[in-house]
Amino acid sequence: MAGELVSEKLPGYRGTALGILEKARVDIGDQIRIKRNGEVYEGILMPRSELGDDKHIEIKLATGYNIGIHVSPAIKIEKIGKGTKPTFTQPPIPKAKPGLPKVSIISTGGTIASRVDYRTGAVRPALSASDLYAVVPELSDVAVIKAEILFSILSENMTPKYWTETAKTVARHIAEGAQGVVVAHGTDTMHYTAAALSFALQNLPVPVLLVGSQRSSDRPSSDAALNLLYSVTAAANAPFAEVTLAFRETIADKCIVLHRGTKVRKCHTSRRDTFKSINAKPLARIEEGKVLMLTEDYRRRDPKRKLIPKPNFEEKVGLVKVHPGFNPKIIEWLVKDEYHGIILEGTGLGHVSAAAFDAIKLAVKKNMFVGMTSQCLWGRVDMKVYETGRDLMAIGVVPLGDMLPETALVKLMWAYGQTKSLDEVKRLMLSNIAGEISSRTHFE
Amino acid sequence: MAGELVSEKLPGYRGTALGILEKARVDIGDQIRIKRNGEVYEGILMPRSELGDDKHIEIKLATGYNIGIHVSPAIKIEKIGKGTKPTFTQPPIPKAKPGLPKVSIISTGGTIASRVDYRTGAVRPALSASDLYAVVPELSDVAVIKAEILFSILSENMTPKYWTETAKTVARHIAEGAQGVVVAHGTDTMHYTAAALSFALQNLPVPVLLVGSQRSSDRPSSDAALNLLYSVTAAANAPFAEVTLAFRETIADKCIVLHRGTKVRKCHTSRRDTFKSINAKPLARIEEGKVLMLTEDYRRRDPKRKLIPKPNFEEKVGLVKVHPGFNPKIIEWLVKDEYHGIILEGTGLGHVSAAAFDAIKLAVKKNMFVGMTSQCLWGRVDMKVYETGRDLMAIGVVPLGDMLPETALVKLMWAYGQTKSLDEVKRLMLSNIAGEISSRTHFE
Repeated sequence: MAGELVSEKLPGYRGTALGILEKARVDIGDQIRIKRNGEVYEGILMPRSELGDDKHIEIKLATGYNIGIHVSPAIKIEKIGKGTKPTFTQPPIPKAKPGLPKVSIISTGGTIASRVDYRTGAVRPALSASDLYAVVPELSDVAVIKAEILFSILSENMTPKYWTETAKTVARHIAEGAQGVVVAHGTDTMHYTAAALSFALQNLPVPVLLVGSQRSSDRPSSDAALNLLYSVTAAANAPFAEVTLAFRETIADKCIVLHRGTKVRKCHTSRRDTFKSINAKPLARIEEGKVLMLTEDYRRRDPKRKLIPKPNFEEKVGLVKVHPGFNPKIIEWLVKDEYHGIILEGTGLGHVSAAAFDAIKLAVKKNMFVGMTSQCLWGRVDMKVYETGRDLMAIGVVPLGDMLPETALVKLMWAYGQTKSLDEVKRLMLSNIAGEISSRTHFE
Repeated sequence: MAGELVSEKLPGYRGTALGILEKARVDIGDQIRIKRNGEVYEGILMPRSELGDDKHIEIKLATGYNIGIHVSPAIKIEKIGKGTKPTFTQPPIPKAKPGLPKVSIISTGGTIASRVDYRTGAVRPALSASDLYAVVPELSDVAVIKAEILFSILSENMTPKYWTETAKTVARHIAEGAQGVVVAHGTDTMHYTAAALSFALQNLPVPVLLVGSQRSSDRPSSDAALNLLYSVTAAANAPFAEVTLAFRETIADKCIVLHRGTKVRKCHTSRRDTFKSINAKPLARIEEGKVLMLTEDYRRRDPKRKLIPKPNFEEKVGLVKVHPGFNPKIIEWLVKDEYHGIILEGTGLGHVSAAAFDAIKLAVKKNMFVGMTSQCLWGRVDMKVYETGRDLMAIGVVPLGDMLPETALVKLMWAYGQTKSLDEVKRLMLSNIAGEISSRTHFE
């Protein structure tokens, strides 16, 4: 969308919406009638005073309320009168108060970043501190912000190479004095990145929070502003020094919870409280701007602690979810393609069909690490209860406790990024490095 | 374990426990002392009056309570006195009361069937109606039972071929007059089989219930008896005619819920309330022996309706869960191996990395059905919201609403079992055949 034209006459409009308004020869302030799918709206055409997409037209109804109308292809617009032209003035941008904690915001893309990309309808590829203060003025009361756009990618396109870059960038900001770091990220794979940073940022001195938004900014239900404000608050003040993922606790707009980066999963395609801690309690809750720790068992903030970045990941690690009719040839293919290791997403307590035993034996014989997790997600694998589990352990499959399959995958990529020794990989996979293995499990 | 010796002198004991007792030269009724891992137990050696494994020895403590002691290798047993020999008489086996509804129990294996396999410690490969009445006497008040052992396999070894056999057997029992059918099944893949039967048994006249148990019978927390009794109750009396999965609602021993076969998933490795309805409410609850429907939206029981079995499945259908670092070659392999179709388990609203677009194009070009579900599990895919979804739809990927990935996989295997026409497969995949697609989603 870079280079897209922005209208002087129709401030805030661009793309599709701008085209339709220009064609209808209407101006800001005109009384207009919009017909769409049999519905009729009448009101005064407003400038777009908020960050938004190019798919909505905003009018002020006779009731005084503004509404955004989606521009479907069948939309019809006519001028029915000329009104007084409303003016839109940018509110004054507050400045950060000196003496506040320094917080870095690193943007990787996603819905939360797109909100701050587009100000007043114009395309804004830069995410500057003043942009952020303008959008969420309360930020200036909380922290002195340093902002960096690292990437501008959709999170479904994230790869381990981007994790490496993100980890290095977080480390640099901490080295430069950040007292907390917020990473803006698309929600699709935010939990994978949270796990990746949990392993890559060892001996962390300050909090690192990943934050995203499920709703884009032009929707009244957008969760972007509060998610960002509360993440910065926690980055500035929270007493922990771990990698967490910040998201709404419930669909009510009150609390943000901080999930441990290795124990969190996206559990709904669209809800604002989509992220859930699995087999663990969240680390903290932020309510009315205050951070409340939910456990005593966490790494304390200590600015004197020296961060040890271990940002490398090995991509050739497979995730295999088994099911009735699963073809063991898929495992053979991974062996043939010289994969380093496989995480099995087994059934129940950690089982796969006996039909796959030979393929797994082959993988073990080729010196691959084969770890077991459960597609149940909740609970822990226990391969001693049934014959199938005992057989798999005898073959050499390593049970991975209550680690989530996604976390186990990321951890195995990380482990092979540190060493090529199978013994050392095994040792790392069975060590609790960032809270990924818990001794008891919580079911919520 | 077939052919294992059973002791006349030590009734109910076999295998490991029998060997240890024989070596210690103790008899039923003897006062014995058991030392194990520093613990000491004293009591009277009891016959095993219940179905059990070969790993426990039962003694009556001075308090009057019986306990089962696990026979670890380090166990030591000595006789410390001779008591009066307690007698164990088999309680009279009740007979079914004539006039009750006819219910068939078809056993495929798993923990719940193993309970009724072993009576009084002896190996009993036959699951007869009288066995069942002996174990759960209340059954004789509820139904006239016809029992059939179809397989004796662990559910992780289930394949689509077994689904076909199970569907045919259920159909035969219904043709022979069963007013309800209970299928005993291991829990690991019970939800896959529930989905399979939901599609295979069209125009069902009576209820079909899959039931299993998370705890084996020798554990005091076993859920086998109540699960079985309540399933038979529902099979005999419930007003619906659908395929459901019966399991505990909570960890308290009170209620059984019946989940729709296409909307249920195993969500905990070990808890007794492991099965959860996803994107749907359960169909019914059984409390104190009464069936309470939880929705009005269900197919009514109608014994005059004619069942249409469609039991065929095509195994060459793949389930592909994507993740950062996912290798698109995996999709190319499935194309090369002449798979018929693929269910993608995408991220968020139904996305995969742009790096996989070419491989997906190849699959579509080869006339494969490619359907999209979400690894979030809850919610529905919506591929119109973001660019990635729209691109994937343009390539030819079909969004599958709020269908669970596992259900979509089973349904695609079933669809290709009915037809090889891609158009007809598409039509089937987008038709709501057994409640697998709902217009609204429920989040719990």
